Amino acid sequence: MSYGENAMSAGNQQERPSADWIVGFVDGEGCFHVAINRQPKMTVGWQVLPEFRVVQHQRDSEVLRKLVSAFGCGRVVRNHGDRMEFRVRKLEDLRRIVEFFQKNPLQTTKQENFAAFAEVMALMEGQQLTKEGLTQIANIAWRMNRRVKPRCLESSETIRLAPGDR
Amino acid sequence: MSYGENAMSAGNQQERPSADWIVGFVDGEGCFHVAINRQPKMTVGWQVLPEFRVVQHQRDSEVLRKLVSAFGCGRVVRNHGDRMEFRVRKLEDLRRIVEFFQKNPLQTTKQENFAAFAEVMALMEGQQLTKEGLTQIANIAWRMNRRVKPRCLESSETIRLAPGDR
Repeated sequence: MSYGENAMSAGNQQERPSADWIVGFVDGEGCFHVAINRQPKMTVGWQVLPEFRVVQHQRDSEVLRKLVSAFGCGRVVRNHGDRMEFRVRKLEDLRRIVEFFQKNPLQTTKQENFAAFAEVMALMEGQQLTKEGLTQIANIAWRMNRRVKPRCLESSETIRLAPGDR
Repeated sequence: MSYGENAMSAGNQQERPSADWIVGFVDGEGCFHVAINRQPKMTVGWQVLPEFRVVQHQRDSEVLRKLVSAFGCGRVVRNHGDRMEFRVRKLEDLRRIVEFFQKNPLQTTKQENFAAFAEVMALMEGQQLTKEGLTQIANIAWRMNRRVKPRCLESSETIRLAPGDR
């Protein structure tokens, strides 16, 4: 069952937004993000954490719950203060998100961020993360985050494997 | 020709967003606003200025131009700094905007703001603004703007008609 077929059915719009509505809303409010955190337990010393989120004032928690129901994944949690977020972190769930936006392309330049995010997801598929893979991902994340260089790329062009230094 | 029929036609999505996409995008990024400015030349001493706008970083000016083409009205102008806005101010154009969102309801609590905006538009129809009409509009605008009391309601429950005081 594809998302589109189900969600576009007539008379159901109030309960479940259409695919096009979701694309428009995410063009405005969605965020594709790739964090790379130091994680000494991992082979390469760093952990890649892709995340999709949509943040709203708590008065619009209802619409975030509609996203959970529309995608069939994700959670609604507090962002900070009076803000709530629809958040997807599990890789298998993020795969569904990626599939959805491949089928239903974003219309703003957020599409470029999504494409980079999908590239990171592809690099994470099916194999343990290598040093080279991590460098590739870190460079994509750098491009996505506009000017904020990932810390794992900080000191040189190679990844620092030893934890503890800063 | 209604907006929906034309915009939903297949194969045209890249050039012209669908009605549902627009609703989603405006749920995220749109703003219905009613300003009430002192205007000594007007009979009641104040001028009601309803406005619909969608603000984006200038990198997404293209999508704002798509809104101009989709609605067949409005302009893309600089908001401030690196921000651009799609802006509709002419009453006849705002009527089209109101019609569109009456036919294609917003899904977030922005719907309440839109309803108040449509109420103001209705109060402005077909007759010169009276003191009572202005008070009604100002009270709706106050509700819309969440806590910011319009200046024309500032000093008392009646509208001050004389310009010059502050």
